Amino acid sequence: MIYEGQRQPVRIARFSIDGNVGFGVLDGDDIDVIKGHPFAEFERSGHKVPLDKVRLLPPVLPNKVVAVGRNYAEHARELGNEVPDVPVTFFKPSTSVVGPGDPVVYPSFSQEVHHEAELAVVIGRMCREVPRERAKDVILGYTCANDITARDVQKREAQWARAKGFDTSCPLGPWVETELDPSDLTIMCTVNGEQRQLGRTSEMVRSVEDLIVHITEAMTLLPGDVVLTGTPAGVGPLQDGDEVAVHIEGIGTLTNKVIKRG
Amino acid sequence: MIYEGQRQPVRIARFSIDGNVGFGVLDGDDIDVIKGHPFAEFERSGHKVPLDKVRLLPPVLPNKVVAVGRNYAEHARELGNEVPDVPVTFFKPSTSVVGPGDPVVYPSFSQEVHHEAELAVVIGRMCREVPRERAKDVILGYTCANDITARDVQKREAQWARAKGFDTSCPLGPWVETELDPSDLTIMCTVNGEQRQLGRTSEMVRSVEDLIVHITEAMTLLPGDVVLTGTPAGVGPLQDGDEVAVHIEGIGTLTNKVIKRG
Repeated sequence: MIYEGQRQPVRIARFSIDGNVGFGVLDGDDIDVIKGHPFAEFERSGHKVPLDKVRLLPPVLPNKVVAVGRNYAEHARELGNEVPDVPVTFFKPSTSVVGPGDPVVYPSFSQEVHHEAELAVVIGRMCREVPRERAKDVILGYTCANDITARDVQKREAQWARAKGFDTSCPLGPWVETELDPSDLTIMCTVNGEQRQLGRTSEMVRSVEDLIVHITEAMTLLPGDVVLTGTPAGVGPLQDGDEVAVHIEGIGTLTNKVIKRG
Repeated sequence: MIYEGQRQPVRIARFSIDGNVGFGVLDGDDIDVIKGHPFAEFERSGHKVPLDKVRLLPPVLPNKVVAVGRNYAEHARELGNEVPDVPVTFFKPSTSVVGPGDPVVYPSFSQEVHHEAELAVVIGRMCREVPRERAKDVILGYTCANDITARDVQKREAQWARAKGFDTSCPLGPWVETELDPSDLTIMCTVNGEQRQLGRTSEMVRSVEDLIVHITEAMTLLPGDVVLTGTPAGVGPLQDGDEVAVHIEGIGTLTNKVIKRG
């Protein structure tokens, strides 16, 4: 969890196979099933399943997702906003979380659903009032997130519970990378293979550590809770049938298909 | 769960005694411990514990609390707001929930924490896209809530995650009343025994059913999730040492003490 420079990647996936759900560590083209639990002590069992035979699930089941808006200046400007003096913090509920490959379903009350590629911080231990120098200690690792947003709803509803909290609005995955320096990573969003968002995590107005300090000043974070760190410029609409992918350097790619019902 | 007029009160409490946690049905001055679970089939065991010997806990452990702002016109006006065309919906996280008698702790970053007495709806079954005529079917019952709000923070932070989501900002209790018509109940808030807020649930801009339709249009509600229905006029600040109580006709009284640390 604590890193000094980049180490060997350790990627913890949650998956299902033949009706069983488990956690495992990526090992080449396989997943080495772990004994124990990622939030406590665990070790590799040596029992491996091929990565292409499993269904990857959301790598964590957060109790809450705490997200931060307008944390990349260029993105704040593209929507006509200033970078706020105090971070804009909002929640996405557990019921909004889906995994890699799961559909993002247009809600009935929106005509304009946007992608927002974000670095997601997975909390590893219960914590509150975390001092800045201890912020790294509460992090299990990092994954990709798409802070799917009903932009039209966001404009007409003062608080964003529906615009950013609808079912399937929080894809997470594909796995949690535990050995990563998050301070300067390329973050990109593609739609049907075409680049839409591009940025570097070094452009964040507030760093990962700053956000953890700010959030835990107010509230307890639990193991598996997720902090979303804001999206770079280039957000835009998704259409029925689009394939949206979030790519983060050192983690991997989170891909989801967009569907409209009825 | 479905009522035609007022029936005999059925009050389900969650409590701890001698290190054990259980659910029970109020029976005079006792709690009749239940077999089963309130969200499934249950029956009274006949094993009773005296109410004054237990510690009452939050009557449910919500995964999320979905709250609605400005749902009483007079309260919207007292803060200089219009009644919105679309309900203002926001989340309070599970980590904000405390029970009857638990302290409400002033967060370090606020100098003005307000009480907001609210009728809380406890969801009894997993549901999504609930039609209005089925809204009552997804309700287990009702309890009292205090939507504790850091008013100064709410004014300076565009989204209310910290202002309304800090630890201890969501007292719930004292129990869940399952046989109640919520449409015209007196709701009152007192501070140190003095009346501060007074209203009737009939003054709600949107009814309980309307709110369930509106929320589940966007998101799945889970058993134990809670919907807060807005607060009547008369909100105001709480001070260190204050005893704040939410009284709702047909339910009971939720009392909490306010403390400042350090």
